[in-house]
Amino acid sequence: MEQGNVTKISSLGEFGLIKRLTESFPLNNDSSVKGVGDDAAVLKYGNKNLLVTTDLLLEGIHFDLTYVPLRHLGYKSAVVNFSDIYAMNGTPRQIVVSIGVSARFSVESLEELYSGIRLACEVYGVDMVGGDTSASLTGLTISITCIGEAATPVYRNGAKENDLICVSGDLGAAYMGLQLLEREKKLFSEGDNTEREFNGKEYLLERQLKPEARKDIVAILAEKGIVPTSMIDVSDGLSSELLHICNQSEKGCRIYEEKIPIDYQTALQAEQFNMSLITAALNGGEDYELLFTVPLGKHDLIESIPGVRIIGHITDESLGRAMITRDGAEIELKAQGWNSLKD
Amino acid sequence: MEQGNVTKISSLGEFGLIKRLTESFPLNNDSSVKGVGDDAAVLKYGNKNLLVTTDLLLEGIHFDLTYVPLRHLGYKSAVVNFSDIYAMNGTPRQIVVSIGVSARFSVESLEELYSGIRLACEVYGVDMVGGDTSASLTGLTISITCIGEAATPVYRNGAKENDLICVSGDLGAAYMGLQLLEREKKLFSEGDNTEREFNGKEYLLERQLKPEARKDIVAILAEKGIVPTSMIDVSDGLSSELLHICNQSEKGCRIYEEKIPIDYQTALQAEQFNMSLITAALNGGEDYELLFTVPLGKHDLIESIPGVRIIGHITDESLGRAMITRDGAEIELKAQGWNSLKD
Repeated sequence: MEQGNVTKISSLGEFGLIKRLTESFPLNNDSSVKGVGDDAAVLKYGNKNLLVTTDLLLEGIHFDLTYVPLRHLGYKSAVVNFSDIYAMNGTPRQIVVSIGVSARFSVESLEELYSGIRLACEVYGVDMVGGDTSASLTGLTISITCIGEAATPVYRNGAKENDLICVSGDLGAAYMGLQLLEREKKLFSEGDNTEREFNGKEYLLERQLKPEARKDIVAILAEKGIVPTSMIDVSDGLSSELLHICNQSEKGCRIYEEKIPIDYQTALQAEQFNMSLITAALNGGEDYELLFTVPLGKHDLIESIPGVRIIGHITDESLGRAMITRDGAEIELKAQGWNSLKD
Repeated sequence: MEQGNVTKISSLGEFGLIKRLTESFPLNNDSSVKGVGDDAAVLKYGNKNLLVTTDLLLEGIHFDLTYVPLRHLGYKSAVVNFSDIYAMNGTPRQIVVSIGVSARFSVESLEELYSGIRLACEVYGVDMVGGDTSASLTGLTISITCIGEAATPVYRNGAKENDLICVSGDLGAAYMGLQLLEREKKLFSEGDNTEREFNGKEYLLERQLKPEARKDIVAILAEKGIVPTSMIDVSDGLSSELLHICNQSEKGCRIYEEKIPIDYQTALQAEQFNMSLITAALNGGEDYELLFTVPLGKHDLIESIPGVRIIGHITDESLGRAMITRDGAEIELKAQGWNSLKD
């Protein structure tokens, strides 16, 4: 279908491709406040700030039905969209859900999927208001769009010099859970049917299979009167997300390896797999924690929030973006996050 | 993956499947006014009525890239969503666009697709505000969600006895265009490379490849102070759509074969293909015209609108839903519309 010079999609990567395809789209309507480039678009209707985010999940790329139960898949598909709304300091209110399914799926299996979506809606107070259902020639396709609202939307581009860099929860566990599941799949496909113990690894599996969005953190920040200067959710890995904040805010940063929150199950598993723990935490992805910046003056208030860690600070752009390791070395942050459009 | 009794998706059909999967979802938020079951969901944020609709388009099911240019595909993908917003008596304002693409697509081919989306946005005054881009193991997947607003949303369920049934434009042409393109594809695949003349068939091809949404009709109705009692866009065929209005309004109807608007190219092509013209007009689909009902008293106002035809009237439910043929016979309307979930 191609003639002449063609550019491979993989040469641009996901973010480069989105930029190239969308940069010529102007915003003309008064109701369009913020378009492509943040966790969600921001619309202004009357006196309300609406948020819109969408995710497309494809079988074989984003999920593997050999080890992901459909109910968990439904739950996660909804939650990852809610997470984008929370990352704008908002509250998710409605979703529309489209699915494409091949004939190998039964109605009962789709009901499993939808029961997971329904549970997520119940837990997060969101209504499912519409969608589309279609046949597919191949696997399962799930497209969810979430609408939310925010009194004060928080963008990626508001980080200021000396702001504190904060992250909720812990990082790298979802990635370790994925490694565990992939190893099981590989062993099973090689004919190894040994029943392995997942005792002591439940947290890793849960983080991968049934992640939660940090509704609680957004609520606590509001309670304490803290409006972050910038915020993003950690879906592609801490390093990649922090670079989004720095790039869009035109700032540099320093984070400290020893401050990065990591669960002991994650650490133990990294050791067992002989993998780099800090790489998993920096680049693992799918943590769905919130990464945000606050003015230095909020230090004590932030310290009082259980489960939020200050991991560094924002600097002038000229200082670059780096992590200080435990032995005091400075290493440049790179976006090695998960990228489905790589070769 | 299935055990025990399973229900095949095809046994329910698209509408049955949607009903089964979504009927247990309650609406709990004040901002959720109308969920699943109309052309778009209706949300109330502040003093604004927002409309949300979404469409999932899959290669091999909804489009065939052997004869659909990517630019046209982009245009049509956007326009079919706009059409759903107009069918609620609304104005489309924003879209988010997600695509899944396999490595066989180049960046340039995706730019073609997006140039069609951009053109549609320009023509209809809509902003593209976000989306998602992903690799795909198979073909092209396009998911578009459109946000609009309406001062007075019009639903499918408001038709009253004696209301006039009106339709814009003409019907069956897009279906005939599809037949033409499918015939070409078949002949070509059989090694027949004869250059065939499409003179006199341009309208059919345009209706299939580059449909328009009836923004103009919604504007004229507003100018004339007409608020339809019910409205829907004709995507699955007149018969199927009219049954949606009758079912949701709990009414019957009579339409007249001789009143159904059909372009002469459509009629000519049906004759050449030895196909039933009225079947194409009733069940053809993809016309994206507006089908609506108005009180009897609006008869003269409707007659004054170029391109809108009164094709029948709403009756008590007990009278059933029927078309009166040219020779006076009464035949029951059936939903034989296009259904991607059939066996």
